[in-house]
Amino acid sequence: MTHGGYHGKSLELLRRFNVEVGDKVYLETTQGNYSGTILPRYEYAVPGRIVVKLENGYNTGVSIDKIKGITRVDQNENNSTAANNGGLVSKENRTVANILEVNKNDNLEEFDSLSSNSPRLSLISTGGTISSRIDYRTGGVRAALTAADLYSSVPELKKYAYIEPEVLFSEYSENLTPRHWAAIAKTVGEKILSKKYKGIMVAHGTDTMHYTAAALSFALHNLPIPVILVGAQRSSDRPSSDAALNLLGAAIMAIKSKVAGVFVAMHNSISDDLVSIHVGTRVRKNHTSRRDAFKSIDIEPIALVRGENIEIPKSNSEISLPERNTEFDKLIVKPNFDKNVTLLKFYPGFDPRWIDYSVEIGSRIIILEGTGLGHVSKECIPSLKNAIDHQVLVFMTSQCIWGRTSLDVYETGRDLLSIGVIPLKNMLTETATVKAMWALGNFKNLDDVKNIMPQNVANEITSRIKIG
Amino acid sequence: MTHGGYHGKSLELLRRFNVEVGDKVYLETTQGNYSGTILPRYEYAVPGRIVVKLENGYNTGVSIDKIKGITRVDQNENNSTAANNGGLVSKENRTVANILEVNKNDNLEEFDSLSSNSPRLSLISTGGTISSRIDYRTGGVRAALTAADLYSSVPELKKYAYIEPEVLFSEYSENLTPRHWAAIAKTVGEKILSKKYKGIMVAHGTDTMHYTAAALSFALHNLPIPVILVGAQRSSDRPSSDAALNLLGAAIMAIKSKVAGVFVAMHNSISDDLVSIHVGTRVRKNHTSRRDAFKSIDIEPIALVRGENIEIPKSNSEISLPERNTEFDKLIVKPNFDKNVTLLKFYPGFDPRWIDYSVEIGSRIIILEGTGLGHVSKECIPSLKNAIDHQVLVFMTSQCIWGRTSLDVYETGRDLLSIGVIPLKNMLTETATVKAMWALGNFKNLDDVKNIMPQNVANEITSRIKIG
Repeated sequence: MTHGGYHGKSLELLRRFNVEVGDKVYLETTQGNYSGTILPRYEYAVPGRIVVKLENGYNTGVSIDKIKGITRVDQNENNSTAANNGGLVSKENRTVANILEVNKNDNLEEFDSLSSNSPRLSLISTGGTISSRIDYRTGGVRAALTAADLYSSVPELKKYAYIEPEVLFSEYSENLTPRHWAAIAKTVGEKILSKKYKGIMVAHGTDTMHYTAAALSFALHNLPIPVILVGAQRSSDRPSSDAALNLLGAAIMAIKSKVAGVFVAMHNSISDDLVSIHVGTRVRKNHTSRRDAFKSIDIEPIALVRGENIEIPKSNSEISLPERNTEFDKLIVKPNFDKNVTLLKFYPGFDPRWIDYSVEIGSRIIILEGTGLGHVSKECIPSLKNAIDHQVLVFMTSQCIWGRTSLDVYETGRDLLSIGVIPLKNMLTETATVKAMWALGNFKNLDDVKNIMPQNVANEITSRIKIG
Repeated sequence: MTHGGYHGKSLELLRRFNVEVGDKVYLETTQGNYSGTILPRYEYAVPGRIVVKLENGYNTGVSIDKIKGITRVDQNENNSTAANNGGLVSKENRTVANILEVNKNDNLEEFDSLSSNSPRLSLISTGGTISSRIDYRTGGVRAALTAADLYSSVPELKKYAYIEPEVLFSEYSENLTPRHWAAIAKTVGEKILSKKYKGIMVAHGTDTMHYTAAALSFALHNLPIPVILVGAQRSSDRPSSDAALNLLGAAIMAIKSKVAGVFVAMHNSISDDLVSIHVGTRVRKNHTSRRDAFKSIDIEPIALVRGENIEIPKSNSEISLPERNTEFDKLIVKPNFDKNVTLLKFYPGFDPRWIDYSVEIGSRIIILEGTGLGHVSKECIPSLKNAIDHQVLVFMTSQCIWGRTSLDVYETGRDLLSIGVIPLKNMLTETATVKAMWALGNFKNLDDVKNIMPQNVANEITSRIKIG
C-alpha cells in the first residue's frame, strides 16, 4: 500500500475502503459525489483531507469528515491503457499511475506520427517545480518529472502543437550557475539552427528564472523565433497548480507570436485565465508563492495570452523586438559568462571592507545595489575609489526596483560619478549582474565592457517608464 | 545678480528684463499672465525655462519662447515684511527671499504666543530632500533648510498644530548609520517624556527612511503617541514637490490618530490628495523617483489621510498597535544597535567565500536574502555550516520582497533548515537587517537574539498576507 504522504486518520480511511494513491475512485461525500484519482499529499499539507484529481483536470481536497464512502473503479485498467498507447494518455485517464507509466515509456513515436502536421515546438527541461512532483517516499516536492511527463499531463497542447521534449538537466533553479546558462543558450541555439521548430520553450525553476531569462537575452542574437521560459509556482501534482496554464500560454506564444525574443510566461493574476508574457530582461519574481509572482518592471508585459489568443498591450511601443523570420542561420550565440562579478546590496551600517574584499578575490565588476536614485554612504567612497584604481568596474543600480538611477541630482551621486561609478539607468539589479557576467565573458577589452554596460542591448534599459 | 542655476538664453532673458532669482515679478506670456517669484533652477533641469512660484503656492516652468515681458514688483518689500513679523510669513508673500529671511530669524516666539492652544507637535529634522533645497551657488540640491524653514513653507499647518522644530542633524539618509538611529530614538524618547507633544514627526531623507522607521519601531516600546517619519521625493523649491502634502498628512495623523506606533507618511499616488500612513516595519521604498515610492508590503497602509480626515482600511485587522494613551512614563527606549550584521544578497554565481569572509570580519549575524521561498545554492551549504559552527546566526529572507520564506517545501530549504538556518517568515530584508542589529545591541545572550529574531515584536511579521 502506497501511503503517498497520508497518515493518521486519512490513512486509516484509505485503508478502511481498501484504496490507495493512484487509484481511480468514486467518492461519496455529504456535499456530493465525485469521480477522480487519489493524489499523494504534500508532506506539510493540512491533515485530515484526501486530495482527488477530478475528471475535469482540477484537483480538490475533501475533508475526511465529509466522506461517506470510497469505491475503487477499474484500478488497473489505466496502467494498461497507458502502456498500450505508448504513454499518450487522454484527459479522462490522466492519473498519477499514468504519469508514472509515462516515465517508463519515454518513446513518443506513436504520438509523433499522429501530429506531424502540427507546429513543432522544442521543450527543454532544466528542472524546477514545473518539472517536479511530490516524492512518494518522503512526501516532499522533488525535481523528478521529465519533460515527457510534463507534456503528457497537459494533453490540451495536442490541439496546438507537437512538442518535442528534452531533459537538459534536472536542477532546482537556485542551483543553476552561469555555466548552466551557457549550456541552455547552446542547446537553444542548436534547436534553432536545426530549423525544425516554430518556437523554443525552456521549463525552469522560478527562483532564478528571471536571471536565466536575462542571460539568454544577452547570449542569443538575431533570434528568428521566440524563446520562452516557463515555470510553475505549485507542482503539477498539487491542487491549483499553475503548470498547465503557464505551459499552454508559453506554447501559444511560441506558435503565434509575430515577434522573436526571449520571454517569460507565467500567470498574470491569481485567476486561472491569463498568462503574462514578460520581456526577459525586464521581469522579476516579486512574490515567494503566488502564481502571479512574476512582474514586468517599468513596462507592461509585452503580451497576454487568453485561451488561444494573444493580446498586445499598446503601452510598450519602445520595446524593440525583431519580427519572427526564417533567417535561422543569422543566429549568433554568445554563451560565455564570467563569474568574476560581485553584487553588493548597500544598507545602513554597510562595511566598506566588502568593496575591498571584492577587489581582493579578483572581482572585475562590482554591481552596487544602492538606495534611492543610486546612493551609498560617503564612507564607501575611498574603497570605491581604490577598486576603480585597481581596474575594477563599478556600476550602480537601485534597490528600489522600479525607476531609474540618477547620480547627478544629489551631492552623493555627483561624488560617485566623479570617482567613476557608472549608473545603469533603469536596469534591474538582477539583469545588471547577469549582463556584467556576459559582458566580461564576451569582450576581451575592459573598455568595451565598460561601454556596453550602460548601453541598451536587449531592452534592459527603457527610456520611458510607465507612470500609473 | 544671482544666476541661480540659469544660463544661456534664460539668463540673457532675466538680464534683459533686469530681474533675478528671488524677485517677485509679473510675467506676461503668450499663454496668459502670472504673478509670482522667480525660483532658482536645478542644475541639470531642461534648459530654456524660467521657473516661477505662483501665488497659489504651486511652481510653474515657463518656456522663454513664450515670455513677452517680465516686470519686477516691489522687490524689497517682502524681505522687510518677513523681518518685521519674525519670520512668520503668509502664503501670499512666501518667497525664496522670505525663506532665506526665516533662516536669519529662527525666533518663533511670536508664533508661539499665537498658537499656544493648538495641539503641539515635535518636528525633528534629520536631513534629506524634505529639508533640502536648491543650492544657489551650484544649482544642485543640498541638505540645507532647517526645520523652521520647513514649517514656514507649509503655513497650512497653522490651522491644525503648533509645531516645534528641532534640527538634530542634516544628513542625506544614505549617510545615516545605526548610531544615527540611536540618536533619533533617544531624541524621540526625550520629547515623549517631556509630555508636551501630541505626536512626534521626524523629517528624513527617503533613501533609508524605511530602515530608520524599522529601527525606531524596535527601539521604542510602550509608545503613548504616534511617531511619524516624513520625507519628500522632490525638494520643496521644485515644481511638484511632495513635501507640503506629506508634512500635512503626517501632522494630521500625529494629531488625530487613535493609535500609537512608528509610521511613515508619504504620497499614496501621484495625485496630490492622499497620504499613506505605513507601519514602520512593513514599508519599503519601491521607486527611485515617484512621489508614491513608498509601499506597504503584504498589508495595506494602516491609514490614509485625505485633507484633514483619516480613513482606516478594514483589511489590516491583525496589525497590533497600542491605543494612544497618556502613560508617557511607561515608555522604554532600547536605542542600542550593533553593526556586526552582514546582509548578503544571493544570485547565480554567488561566491560562498562571502559567507566565510563574514565570519572572518566578525559578523555575528548573517541575513541571507535568498531566492524564492528562501533558497541559496547547495554550494553555499558548507560555508553556512561553518559559519553556524562559529556561533554566527544565519537568517533567511527573500529577495522576492512580497510573501513569506518557507524552508520546508523543497529539498534545498530542508537542507538549510537542517544545518540551522532560520527563516524569518515574511519579514522584509531591510527590516530583518535592522532588527538583527537591534537584537544584537540589546540582548547579551546569543540564544535570546536567536529566539527574538523569528518572533513578532513590532508587526514585522504578519500571519496573513494580502491577496489582491
